[in-house]
Amino acid sequence: MTELSGHSLIAGTEVRGNAGSSQGIDPRTDSALDPAYSALDADQTESATRAAAAAFRSYRVTSPEARSAFLDRIAANIEAVRAPLVERAMAETGLPEARLNGEVSRTVGQLRLFAEVVRTGHFHGARIDPARPDRTPLPRLDIRLRKVSLGPVAVFGASNFPLAFSVAGGDTASALAAGCPVVVKAHNAHPGTSEIVGRAITAAVADSGFDPGVFSLVYGSGSTIGQQLAADPRIAAIGFTGSRSAGLALSATAENRPVPIPVYAEMSSINPVVVLPGSLSAEGLGAEVLASQFITSLTGSSGQLCTAPGLVFVPTGEAGDALLEQIANQLPEQTGQTMLTSGIARAFGEGVEKLQSQPGVQTVAAGVPGEGANAPAPIVLTASAKDLMANEALSEEIFGAASLVVRYRDVEELQAALEGLEGQLTTTLQATESDLGVARDLLPVLEDLCGRILWGGWPTGVEVGHAMVHGGPFPATSAPATTSVGSLAIERFLRPVSYQSLPEALLPEPVRGDNPWSAMQLVDGEVKG
Amino acid sequence: MTELSGHSLIAGTEVRGNAGSSQGIDPRTDSALDPAYSALDADQTESATRAAAAAFRSYRVTSPEARSAFLDRIAANIEAVRAPLVERAMAETGLPEARLNGEVSRTVGQLRLFAEVVRTGHFHGARIDPARPDRTPLPRLDIRLRKVSLGPVAVFGASNFPLAFSVAGGDTASALAAGCPVVVKAHNAHPGTSEIVGRAITAAVADSGFDPGVFSLVYGSGSTIGQQLAADPRIAAIGFTGSRSAGLALSATAENRPVPIPVYAEMSSINPVVVLPGSLSAEGLGAEVLASQFITSLTGSSGQLCTAPGLVFVPTGEAGDALLEQIANQLPEQTGQTMLTSGIARAFGEGVEKLQSQPGVQTVAAGVPGEGANAPAPIVLTASAKDLMANEALSEEIFGAASLVVRYRDVEELQAALEGLEGQLTTTLQATESDLGVARDLLPVLEDLCGRILWGGWPTGVEVGHAMVHGGPFPATSAPATTSVGSLAIERFLRPVSYQSLPEALLPEPVRGDNPWSAMQLVDGEVKG
Repeated sequence: MTELSGHSLIAGTEVRGNAGSSQGIDPRTDSALDPAYSALDADQTESATRAAAAAFRSYRVTSPEARSAFLDRIAANIEAVRAPLVERAMAETGLPEARLNGEVSRTVGQLRLFAEVVRTGHFHGARIDPARPDRTPLPRLDIRLRKVSLGPVAVFGASNFPLAFSVAGGDTASALAAGCPVVVKAHNAHPGTSEIVGRAITAAVADSGFDPGVFSLVYGSGSTIGQQLAADPRIAAIGFTGSRSAGLALSATAENRPVPIPVYAEMSSINPVVVLPGSLSAEGLGAEVLASQFITSLTGSSGQLCTAPGLVFVPTGEAGDALLEQIANQLPEQTGQTMLTSGIARAFGEGVEKLQSQPGVQTVAAGVPGEGANAPAPIVLTASAKDLMANEALSEEIFGAASLVVRYRDVEELQAALEGLEGQLTTTLQATESDLGVARDLLPVLEDLCGRILWGGWPTGVEVGHAMVHGGPFPATSAPATTSVGSLAIERFLRPVSYQSLPEALLPEPVRGDNPWSAMQLVDGEVKG
Repeated sequence: MTELSGHSLIAGTEVRGNAGSSQGIDPRTDSALDPAYSALDADQTESATRAAAAAFRSYRVTSPEARSAFLDRIAANIEAVRAPLVERAMAETGLPEARLNGEVSRTVGQLRLFAEVVRTGHFHGARIDPARPDRTPLPRLDIRLRKVSLGPVAVFGASNFPLAFSVAGGDTASALAAGCPVVVKAHNAHPGTSEIVGRAITAAVADSGFDPGVFSLVYGSGSTIGQQLAADPRIAAIGFTGSRSAGLALSATAENRPVPIPVYAEMSSINPVVVLPGSLSAEGLGAEVLASQFITSLTGSSGQLCTAPGLVFVPTGEAGDALLEQIANQLPEQTGQTMLTSGIARAFGEGVEKLQSQPGVQTVAAGVPGEGANAPAPIVLTASAKDLMANEALSEEIFGAASLVVRYRDVEELQAALEGLEGQLTTTLQATESDLGVARDLLPVLEDLCGRILWGGWPTGVEVGHAMVHGGPFPATSAPATTSVGSLAIERFLRPVSYQSLPEALLPEPVRGDNPWSAMQLVDGEVKG
């Protein structure tokens, strides 16, 4: 593969930044990784959005074949650099090889899913209300609707998924699929990983014969070029995955522009798991298995997953006590894994300390710290539902392998506690058939609380498909009507337009009578054909 | 019909407000209309949102039959009071009887359209990705998606459509169809009209056996109870049609809540009409007909339509001159019609005066003021495209029958002028086959500029159907990905939720395998046949 340059990729060209530089850090050793990455100044950053704006009109009219081939090409280019990509990502993130290999596959699969979405064409949202010249009192005119591309999108990658939620992650894939050029701000925690993927996309743009402005990768800090991208009049939408504070800062800027734009920020979630009595009974998984599965879900990727189970509701009484005993037995065998950055590891420690100091909070068990830097011990704490409801500090997200077991006395208290929570990405019911009645009552509460409801299983592991919602009420996301994973994510970068009485020669393909792209069309409100 | 009470209707109960009162005004005479309407205080207003929140869980699970019958019942109840409703609306708005009768029909038709939307069930957005236990490396779990109701919606009616964009207008109809209780803030310019319609809805709620909190109609000022509704934690979304300043004030409040909510505000548009050369030629309509149609579109409802043609691009040269001459000939025959309120008439006069005082702006012609109060003369002004591009004041909306004819020298200048405009609800091409080449080049510009593109015809008159978009980029609306008219408007009040591995007994109807509601389901991304 190409040697890393340490520079931004703006519309196909390597650009050395004028605003200083910084290096990736290997969190396993806290040592700096070469090369240094140069940061762009404001003018250089603007050249990326200018190029994206210039590329928009030609890119948005690309055919389904050309656009889906482009997405497939990006996927193939990433596959082709799998080994050096995983190696660099391991050095920059401390994540294990198997996890990163899986993430490459997921990233590639996601690009191919969106290629398929582009080919299928449901996303055009085509609707045709044919003219009715004989209607009284007024004739009806021919009106057709399709969705158009929104414009250039700025994408901010996440630290915890250096591939699947980063340069060629879900935001980029769905924006490109929607016909929108993309400017990615590289995450400073994995600059080399970002460059390798950025080169894969850049090559695919060139091989597709598209305007090079369709993609740029820019380096710099969030508070300078990140804010600049959010304020740039050429940027039409923002995709973001990361912390609540950074997401809210971008939202504030985007809302206060002369022309506000949507920010699709996936921010904060503690993913309640509700253990119902059946699951602790002889018919259910039982305490030992539940504890084991919980610990696996909590400690995977050092707990640095948006959907890690940070809150577990467990009934009071003996059966629930048994679950805590199992956790107390099993967790000490767990060794802490390296976290993504020393800053994240420090924040984890501070978060745990703050939670431990809250009234009513007790430690159930902790694992042991890992060897090397930044590998704190996983920990499980406990408190009562009453304490949870009385103190917001008990439901603050701690990014990492820490979870709070909340004991509830009865279903009423459980429901009240769930209704008191902020919006979540997921909620999980650990239950058996004997819990169906309770689950049925809780379902509307969970629907109002989150974007995905699980029956059994654990919230970590987000399937990339047509029916996935990775989203949820604020503050899980800033745009609860959307998802950032799965094919529905393309909707974020589209806008409906109606055409009234347009001659056939001018009609866009998705709403033409001969339907050359074989798009799904609703004719008079009914699916055609 | 029932005598007007002059009070709010909160969850089926008449509530006398504690915060003073005000009266509707007949704009034809500037005389006050009985009864006085009592304004709610903060506690009283909160009782409406509390009732809406309490009604939400039972209303959102109503069956398609029950919910669509409810919408049909509202329609029938409004039909039943058509005569007194039109009479009161005439007194409160000064709008002509035929227009208001048409608006009743439109309102009723809109409710019935949404009843049909509920029965058809496409809006559930159901998606099913079945389990694939044999997939490697990991099995796929069963994941299903449907859209759930967002929560109680606050609706702010418009002055210019006292029926179709007011108490039982598109926002209310689409929110109720989506399973959301509604709290309407009555527009103070038509309080009696609002009460009559509010009673029709209230009766339909009772006859449907629903929780009375499904609907409330509250009276008070926008700056007090309006702002209170936008800030209320029980309100999940806002539908608004009105001025830019009021829409932005609601948006600011909604964005700065602890939990921000979406504001669907339809605000400001001058609806450019582009006269291309062909339309002025022998093959086209020609100057005389174009002038006549333009004046009809401009002066209807005294120009107080969101889609009134406030900006007309006309080529320089003789053919364009002829169009201006025709306007100059025909407009003086037009008599001003009564505007909705004295405040609106005053703002119209100020807007015209401001526009006339701008450099390069000249008056083409004016009509004559109508008899009685608040009936200013319609007016058409002109300027060059260069002046338009140099001065934002030339593209500010003047609510009423005033329009600016902008002369363009060539297609390049036309395109530059269009690209310099703010977001619009509509743009219209007056063109013939000889203009197809130019129109094809302009189409992407228009798609980025507005929500609806017309080939011929005039933008006033918004069809309520499946393919209509009444929306557009900011500041036409605050939510460019949505429409406030047509069946797609229901999407504003829904949110997707995924269900992972849920037992059939718990699955919501739209995603059940036996599909009891016959909803459209995408299975593995394909429409199930």
